Amino acid sequence: MHLLTLRRMKNSEAKSRAVIEQVSPVIDGGLFPIKRIPGEWVNVEADIFGDGHDYLSARLQYRKEGTKKWKEVPMVHQANDRWKAAFRVEDTGFYEYAVLAWIDHGITWLNGFMKKAAAGEPMEVELQIGLKFLERMAEEKGSEQKFIRDTIALLRDSDHYQDAIQVVMGERLREFFESNKLRENLSVSQSFQVLVERKKALFSAWYEFFPRASSPDPGRAGTFRDCEKILPLIAGMGFDTVYFPPIHPIGNSFRKGKNNSTTAMPGEPGSPWAIGNSEGGHKSINPELGNFKDFEKLVNSAEKLGIEIAIDLAYQCSPDHPYVKDHPQWFRWRPDGTVQYAENPPKKYQDVLPIHFENDDWKNLWEELKSIVEFWIGKGIRIFRVDNPHTKPFVFWQWLMAEMRRDYPEVIFLSEAFTRPKIMARLAKVGFQQSYTYFTWRENKQELEQYMHELCGTVSREYFRPNFWPNTPDILPYYLQNTGYTQSAIRFILASTLSSSYGLYGPVFELLENEPMPGKEEYLDSEKYEVRHWDWQTKTPFHNLIKRINLIRKENEAFQNTFNYQPCQTNQDQLMAYFKTSGTNMILVVLNLDPVHKQNGWVQLPLKELRVEEGQVIELEDLLNDKTYHWNKEWNYIELDPAHTLAHIFRIQLYHR
Amino acid sequence: MHLLTLRRMKNSEAKSRAVIEQVSPVIDGGLFPIKRIPGEWVNVEADIFGDGHDYLSARLQYRKEGTKKWKEVPMVHQANDRWKAAFRVEDTGFYEYAVLAWIDHGITWLNGFMKKAAAGEPMEVELQIGLKFLERMAEEKGSEQKFIRDTIALLRDSDHYQDAIQVVMGERLREFFESNKLRENLSVSQSFQVLVERKKALFSAWYEFFPRASSPDPGRAGTFRDCEKILPLIAGMGFDTVYFPPIHPIGNSFRKGKNNSTTAMPGEPGSPWAIGNSEGGHKSINPELGNFKDFEKLVNSAEKLGIEIAIDLAYQCSPDHPYVKDHPQWFRWRPDGTVQYAENPPKKYQDVLPIHFENDDWKNLWEELKSIVEFWIGKGIRIFRVDNPHTKPFVFWQWLMAEMRRDYPEVIFLSEAFTRPKIMARLAKVGFQQSYTYFTWRENKQELEQYMHELCGTVSREYFRPNFWPNTPDILPYYLQNTGYTQSAIRFILASTLSSSYGLYGPVFELLENEPMPGKEEYLDSEKYEVRHWDWQTKTPFHNLIKRINLIRKENEAFQNTFNYQPCQTNQDQLMAYFKTSGTNMILVVLNLDPVHKQNGWVQLPLKELRVEEGQVIELEDLLNDKTYHWNKEWNYIELDPAHTLAHIFRIQLYHR
Repeated sequence: MHLLTLRRMKNSEAKSRAVIEQVSPVIDGGLFPIKRIPGEWVNVEADIFGDGHDYLSARLQYRKEGTKKWKEVPMVHQANDRWKAAFRVEDTGFYEYAVLAWIDHGITWLNGFMKKAAAGEPMEVELQIGLKFLERMAEEKGSEQKFIRDTIALLRDSDHYQDAIQVVMGERLREFFESNKLRENLSVSQSFQVLVERKKALFSAWYEFFPRASSPDPGRAGTFRDCEKILPLIAGMGFDTVYFPPIHPIGNSFRKGKNNSTTAMPGEPGSPWAIGNSEGGHKSINPELGNFKDFEKLVNSAEKLGIEIAIDLAYQCSPDHPYVKDHPQWFRWRPDGTVQYAENPPKKYQDVLPIHFENDDWKNLWEELKSIVEFWIGKGIRIFRVDNPHTKPFVFWQWLMAEMRRDYPEVIFLSEAFTRPKIMARLAKVGFQQSYTYFTWRENKQELEQYMHELCGTVSREYFRPNFWPNTPDILPYYLQNTGYTQSAIRFILASTLSSSYGLYGPVFELLENEPMPGKEEYLDSEKYEVRHWDWQTKTPFHNLIKRINLIRKENEAFQNTFNYQPCQTNQDQLMAYFKTSGTNMILVVLNLDPVHKQNGWVQLPLKELRVEEGQVIELEDLLNDKTYHWNKEWNYIELDPAHTLAHIFRIQLYHR
Repeated sequence: MHLLTLRRMKNSEAKSRAVIEQVSPVIDGGLFPIKRIPGEWVNVEADIFGDGHDYLSARLQYRKEGTKKWKEVPMVHQANDRWKAAFRVEDTGFYEYAVLAWIDHGITWLNGFMKKAAAGEPMEVELQIGLKFLERMAEEKGSEQKFIRDTIALLRDSDHYQDAIQVVMGERLREFFESNKLRENLSVSQSFQVLVERKKALFSAWYEFFPRASSPDPGRAGTFRDCEKILPLIAGMGFDTVYFPPIHPIGNSFRKGKNNSTTAMPGEPGSPWAIGNSEGGHKSINPELGNFKDFEKLVNSAEKLGIEIAIDLAYQCSPDHPYVKDHPQWFRWRPDGTVQYAENPPKKYQDVLPIHFENDDWKNLWEELKSIVEFWIGKGIRIFRVDNPHTKPFVFWQWLMAEMRRDYPEVIFLSEAFTRPKIMARLAKVGFQQSYTYFTWRENKQELEQYMHELCGTVSREYFRPNFWPNTPDILPYYLQNTGYTQSAIRFILASTLSSSYGLYGPVFELLENEPMPGKEEYLDSEKYEVRHWDWQTKTPFHNLIKRINLIRKENEAFQNTFNYQPCQTNQDQLMAYFKTSGTNMILVVLNLDPVHKQNGWVQLPLKELRVEEGQVIELEDLLNDKTYHWNKEWNYIELDPAHTLAHIFRIQLYHR
């Protein structure tokens, strides 16, 4: 608690009678910035009150960092001393905001004046008091100088008593009082930060595949050149981000074989996450994939198709990584002179060495790790999917993200952490632009709605941008194992319409290649350990669905934000419905969660959010099935048969009376 | 957000891998201390986690401010990365606490050792690693020096491989590791304060009366000497605090007459809250009540009866107060040379001048206001009921309370603010030891339970100590108007058993003098504006009830804390039940909220809190009605007839099998 001593206290401190508490949105007392993209709003609230019964005024002030001038928005009292105002961020970079409040003596006087005049009291003295306010306020520059000079003259002239009263009671004088900057004994809150990042941080559709799986020739592994030929297919489905597992040289020592066996047969390619061998480490390309020229050509081709290439940032080393010899101090060594590999006793992961962050050479280590990112930025990469960020110190990420924001604000990091919720949250707070989520294991309606509430209805929304993945090379969830089209389609529709960022690991997803390792949530014959060959060219119903929904997402702003999610009630558990809106774009999604049976029931329209009343006709255009409906009730009948229709994606049109 | 630059970052910062978040209890990020009385516990929780899978250790540390040595309690993981520990405060004054956490490499190694040894792996290298930990740990002083020296010798000796393994796997070595202070790269939370105040801050029974109403002679007003004769009656009822409305000279200008009329008749005594006339101000005594000698004699007599006298601290002045002439700068003056009285336009309160806190002479003003408190402390007063604290700046109170805590830590201030909740909360945060509440208007079960939850089930409990008043000279709630014994008795039982501090304004309360001003929540012929005479000597049933319950409160620790309140379910709305426990003292209160009709129903015993199972017999001794019951079910039948029994106050005794 601040020790208040009279000697040290400033006049402004002692006389500030307005109290500002509980400003929101604020993360951990302001330790971390809240996040936005350009065009988004920041809705600021605060508890504001003063002693006594005088009139209180409050403003929200904000500015882009680096600019000098604050902009202001009047705060409006809601209820129970909670005040509110909002501002819109326009550009990427940092903004800051704070709350101001003061006892507004001018308006206190003006309000008293109105009441006393209405009660027919003599107003001479009140006019003289007002004159003093006006004289001081006139010192502030403003557009009303002439009006104020005239009013002052009028108030000084006792012959125009009635006229003076009329002017004081007029709207123009009140407006002048409300806009005047004469603010005595102002209270100012702490200042808080908003980090505005490019739109893609919030809105993106990812497609992951193993570049070595791109070969059309079953006799050889795929290369970057093969990948380039696949890109148009992926762009055709509407994805904007293609993410590759690590593309670096793969370690030979303790190389893993097919299905994660501990000994690889000669010729087995190994896991791309065992990074580094005598041919190089994190700044090298696995020669089997091609060379830097091929890679840069691929990145350029992708760009022309509207696709950004994302690479994997896996800060770990195979025992053959050049770092191990060149920087032994970055690893842990055992008394017998061997290097410490990853382990979860008694299990051993000898093909991967974790970096020992608590080493005395940490400054050089951090700089080197940063230089890896900068190296790939130099090759045209702006998006990194970070492998296991939760096994590296949070403080390191906090530093790296701050460095990146300063020098490359367009770079996006996706946090691959499927771990404990507070750890995932912390990674987002320290700066990861996007995060993997538990969506992968949220299956029934209650689980999904509860999880959406966690993401959208709590302070989490201010820093944690979810990216929904139905599957990854590490996870083939039980729900999707050995199943057909409808199961996968439900998961795809949920991911892509609940979250503005989502991703698929393909082509296994759309090809329904979903045989698991028995009893595990893992793919059998996983691409992590071997080269697979896929039929990239044949179109399945999935390709049409994906293409359609990605197009809907692009054409409807409501899908370009996650946090506008609002659940809608239905009368049964297999029917899930949600409403999303952005500006005039209003979307209602209704989904049958049952992959087998036809389900019917009733869905409640969010009349309040739509600002319509029961009885008013609205038009619902089903963007997925090209039909149009007209509803005029709050509760409406829905029937969804997975044999032909899994979901409605309604765009709502209002008819104005 | 902290800007992290490598150049500025310390090794300790860069290597600290444990994260500490969301420490509780904490008020407004630590801006204000939490409050306790001696013997109370502080239950501290925090989110604690690290990167990776290493073993994490955490400690709660605390100390009395001014002492150098921290004490420590191990924190224990609960669930979802929430950790917990508690400490007890013993003395009044400030304590501080903080949370420590670190990646515990020693225990990480030890845990791995156990698993590897169990898996039959070769342990030579593991023993060498352990040796290094032990050698470093041995540098810390501790009681286990010999054991550790021996263990080190054993581990160095390769001939005793199996013995070494046995010792490493033993409980004694683990205990040594757990207690050792070798903590690398420690993370430490912000440090937070606890303010420990004397027990009376939490546990008190107040009785308010107008000293001028103490006269046994209808022909004259009461004096301090008359009050002295009444004290034994009040002590006999079991009260420990007697509070007097202001005892200072009363202003003559604009003196209020009977029933708040704006003109007083000659001889009318005026409102004691219009403080000050030519005979003095806040440091003087109204000569009609007596002199300082009388007052001090009264305070001493009270002390012998176990009663503390509380006086009213009303920072406001009648127009005749000496301050108005001597310190005109402390008031607001109008252009016509008149002083600004209190007003709520068009209403005028001309008998009271508010102090103008935003004046340039505020330092002298604050010192003078403080000197008033010190003056009365000099006369033996330790408790002040503060009139309308919400009309004086919060920052002034914050300063005054800090000054008082430093110099007179035993002083208690009761905040008389029946205003907006956040304002009442702020006054408690800045230091008021007790607060008036909305209890006065919480009547039915749902209202009462919800309000108790606000007070006891939220962060409010850390700083806001409620004092429940069924009535005050300002408030005769509608519920009590023109009613008989049972209504008032219900309100009394609720106040005195829900809250460890409560108060009555008497003798109107126990004499059932409850005629209102028509249509208002005010007393007719209020003592605020005239001298009333009461029959102080006749005992009513109320005296017995009050005496009994005050005795029960003194004999049962469970009633000496408010925040141990736990609601119990009943099957109907007129039966309210709650459980309170302190140590082995367990109390169940069951109350009929219906003042007229007999009510019956079922009450649920809190089996979990009682730590008994259904079927086990417990004994319930009704402290109010001298009957004993035996229950062995979770749900139990209750019947309460207001004609003879309004409530049970059960003390619960467990039979141990």
